[in-house]
Amino acid sequence: MLNRVRSAVAHLVSSGGASPPRPKSPDLPSTTSAPLAAAPETPKSPPARPRSESGASAKTVETRASFSRPTFLQLSPGGLRRADDHAGRAVQSPPDRGRRLPWSTGYAEVINAGKSRHNEDQACCEVVYVEGRRSVTGAPREPSQSQGLCFYYWGLFDGHAGGGAAEMASRLLHRHIREQLKDLVEILQDPSPPPLCLPGTSGTPGCSDSTHLIGPQSCWSSQKEVTHESLVVGAIENAFQLMDEQMARERERRGHQVEGGCCALVVVYLLGKVYVANAGDSRAIIVRNGEIIPMSREFTPETERQRLQLLGFLKPELLGGEFTHLEFPRRVQPKELGQRMLYRDQNMTGWAYKKIELEDLRFPLVCGEGKKARVMATIGVTRGLGDHNLKVCSSTLPIKPFLSCFPEVRVYDLTQYEHCPDDVLVLGTDGLWDVTNDCEVAATVDRVLSAYEPNDPSRYTALAQALVLGARGTPRDRGWRLPNNKLGSGDDISVFVIPLGGPGSYS
Amino acid sequence: MLNRVRSAVAHLVSSGGASPPRPKSPDLPSTTSAPLAAAPETPKSPPARPRSESGASAKTVETRASFSRPTFLQLSPGGLRRADDHAGRAVQSPPDRGRRLPWSTGYAEVINAGKSRHNEDQACCEVVYVEGRRSVTGAPREPSQSQGLCFYYWGLFDGHAGGGAAEMASRLLHRHIREQLKDLVEILQDPSPPPLCLPGTSGTPGCSDSTHLIGPQSCWSSQKEVTHESLVVGAIENAFQLMDEQMARERERRGHQVEGGCCALVVVYLLGKVYVANAGDSRAIIVRNGEIIPMSREFTPETERQRLQLLGFLKPELLGGEFTHLEFPRRVQPKELGQRMLYRDQNMTGWAYKKIELEDLRFPLVCGEGKKARVMATIGVTRGLGDHNLKVCSSTLPIKPFLSCFPEVRVYDLTQYEHCPDDVLVLGTDGLWDVTNDCEVAATVDRVLSAYEPNDPSRYTALAQALVLGARGTPRDRGWRLPNNKLGSGDDISVFVIPLGGPGSYS
Repeated sequence: MLNRVRSAVAHLVSSGGASPPRPKSPDLPSTTSAPLAAAPETPKSPPARPRSESGASAKTVETRASFSRPTFLQLSPGGLRRADDHAGRAVQSPPDRGRRLPWSTGYAEVINAGKSRHNEDQACCEVVYVEGRRSVTGAPREPSQSQGLCFYYWGLFDGHAGGGAAEMASRLLHRHIREQLKDLVEILQDPSPPPLCLPGTSGTPGCSDSTHLIGPQSCWSSQKEVTHESLVVGAIENAFQLMDEQMARERERRGHQVEGGCCALVVVYLLGKVYVANAGDSRAIIVRNGEIIPMSREFTPETERQRLQLLGFLKPELLGGEFTHLEFPRRVQPKELGQRMLYRDQNMTGWAYKKIELEDLRFPLVCGEGKKARVMATIGVTRGLGDHNLKVCSSTLPIKPFLSCFPEVRVYDLTQYEHCPDDVLVLGTDGLWDVTNDCEVAATVDRVLSAYEPNDPSRYTALAQALVLGARGTPRDRGWRLPNNKLGSGDDISVFVIPLGGPGSYS
Repeated sequence: MLNRVRSAVAHLVSSGGASPPRPKSPDLPSTTSAPLAAAPETPKSPPARPRSESGASAKTVETRASFSRPTFLQLSPGGLRRADDHAGRAVQSPPDRGRRLPWSTGYAEVINAGKSRHNEDQACCEVVYVEGRRSVTGAPREPSQSQGLCFYYWGLFDGHAGGGAAEMASRLLHRHIREQLKDLVEILQDPSPPPLCLPGTSGTPGCSDSTHLIGPQSCWSSQKEVTHESLVVGAIENAFQLMDEQMARERERRGHQVEGGCCALVVVYLLGKVYVANAGDSRAIIVRNGEIIPMSREFTPETERQRLQLLGFLKPELLGGEFTHLEFPRRVQPKELGQRMLYRDQNMTGWAYKKIELEDLRFPLVCGEGKKARVMATIGVTRGLGDHNLKVCSSTLPIKPFLSCFPEVRVYDLTQYEHCPDDVLVLGTDGLWDVTNDCEVAATVDRVLSAYEPNDPSRYTALAQALVLGARGTPRDRGWRLPNNKLGSGDDISVFVIPLGGPGSYS
């Protein structure tokens, strides 16, 4: 699965006209100073069905090298080589000099110990300006009306089976989110509840939110209240799907493939709220006054067993006659035909015995435990982007139908609590969490931050580095080992530390 | 939906030979003294696939009257008439004299205020003896080996669209659980982990739990550990399914139908652990030292929206061209074609706008909020037993495919905590919970129990009565009203109060 990937990554072209005004901020990452390229084609109207087409059109500008690191690391060619060195595994962070990441965010990463040719993690940190596409009345917005919105964005992308998907997502996902938010600019700034119905693109008159309805429908006596927050959640969810669809199109449309897939863990800060969207096995926690607040959960063959089994049960053609949707505690052997073995069906959380029949000898759709759990004996994460060409080993059976590109989004209201400089949101790829846990991370947060002045903006980078180093360990006894002599993580490790009440201003 | 039901209820016939030895207990409810009828046919071997056939064969012994109440209420014909009186709504409890329910369980119920002809709730409380069907080696058990198991059982069944399903479930579900446990008697009494594989019914030799496996299967390096607890959970889950299948068979096989469906909330106490299985919108909470421990969650069109929408998306034929799997905040009107309305798809928790197309004018699969939420504009609960003949209003479209008969099972280890006589497990149908909440119930627990001596066994019945009365209210201003003048529950209300550390002995 850990193929070397030569992927060409498409650069997204903004669908707006001229470059929109960008907010001036001393915290702006250097990457955001690059202009969002001018549109080569007529601005598209927003999609009626977000899933059927992308509002963010793609155009390949260049075929990229097979190895790149986040631009905010500002790596020289020599630095890039050091970052790519499996033997040294030097921890990488943005340079101390120059502009800091927004909110004085800390970041650190390290390459794997040799499990793949390159570091397949990618990261992105941006301040994104959203210009309203049109007013609620459907009329195009006048420039004078352009009171746009700004959101802060952090993303971690853990690639597998190649680095293409992670790299593409790190460059484009926030732009898909921006596209989705363009229609919401005016609505999100209006304190009244969002309108349930808007005029069409052709400027047909708007509709009233009348509750006078057709036919017998006692369950419709009132209309559902939809919050601003749920609009942002919906925008992020659809952006994930559009990103995934773009990867599929790139693969079909052009000679080059977007190889592999990636987990995506994304944070959006907008209008006082932090949205944490996770699709995969990365993890986000808030450490606030020593307390741990989980902000994500992992999507694996174990946690999503019932969803996967249900799909296999409802759509047996997806199993290709090679797999059974039933789960067994170990592989069934031919000589056990007619005997009774423990099993779980899609509706069960408990186990029961069943008589083994011929079709039970097929390989189970879901098998294994912990880090060894797999879907179709192949992949250990069940949500993420890409993987459109992932097949079962020695087979043409596609695995993608069982994978979901939809994140779970959790919302944290920053205004509901007075945060201190030691309160942080920690994002890490599984390279971090495989060898540590929430409590140990919280202890490291306390230990490292208390060694720095509260207003020292470098403390969050120091913390990110400490977390990465603590998970990597040091070379000893022919391996990377932790102080307790257990093996350190041999995976790529990437960590963001986002201060919630630190010196970075976000008001 | 609230049809008058004339249902004939089948009586289950034990598949064992002679009546098994019953435990002698002063707590045994009078209903359990009825002999479990002798088997008229050869004992069946346990089913290889529990879902394909029932180990508990059914035989109609009599056609029952359309109205019955739990036998443990010991109602005279006059008492039965009073229990059926919508005007008086007298609270019913087991008589103070004679045998108490096991553990001195409290129970109270009241009929609805007229929404259906009879009380469609049913209840059951039993001590059930499980005789092992055979030994782990597959050999039939010798009578001398018959160290069976006993479980305590409480069940609340809230019927809808007729009382047949609730009545049938109240008489038979615990027997299905017993059938499922028969194969596990020896395994559950053996402290070593359950064997993954057992010899077949034909007595073929048992298999070793070898991890030597065929083919490339790195995810199978170890076998999964299965606990005794998860075997009991699996047994309860399969018993629910078999009960549901039996209802379907009864309907097809005989002239009479099992009308309607029912929610089922069931408690099994076995070997130190309390298993709470819920399919529907009843609720169970533990009140322990004033603290509330939720032991169930409700399954409604709102809580199961994504499961329902996914099913409609994957199997659009189930929507019959009449419904759309998309959710809208209110009904879409034909004049709104081409405009943009908020919607949610099966993968979304947030909302987004979409252009309204022709198929969006179909009625949504899921609509409404709170108690008015409906699947296919018809039913407000999404799990339960029965409903095999439930159709969409003015249509032949079946709703059953969207309903699940599988409960969620939560486990509470009674041995992990020293319980006092005021610690109770409260079960209530939605008639209770529609007008009260966990905190108010906990306050009533405290208030009522503190008015009685800790060793007074009648205190739990008094508590159940207080809970039912508190939800029913008193007749005032042309309605049943609570002290705060809000409307009381006009639904059937049934409550069990199970003491966890009371005078009832369960050791």
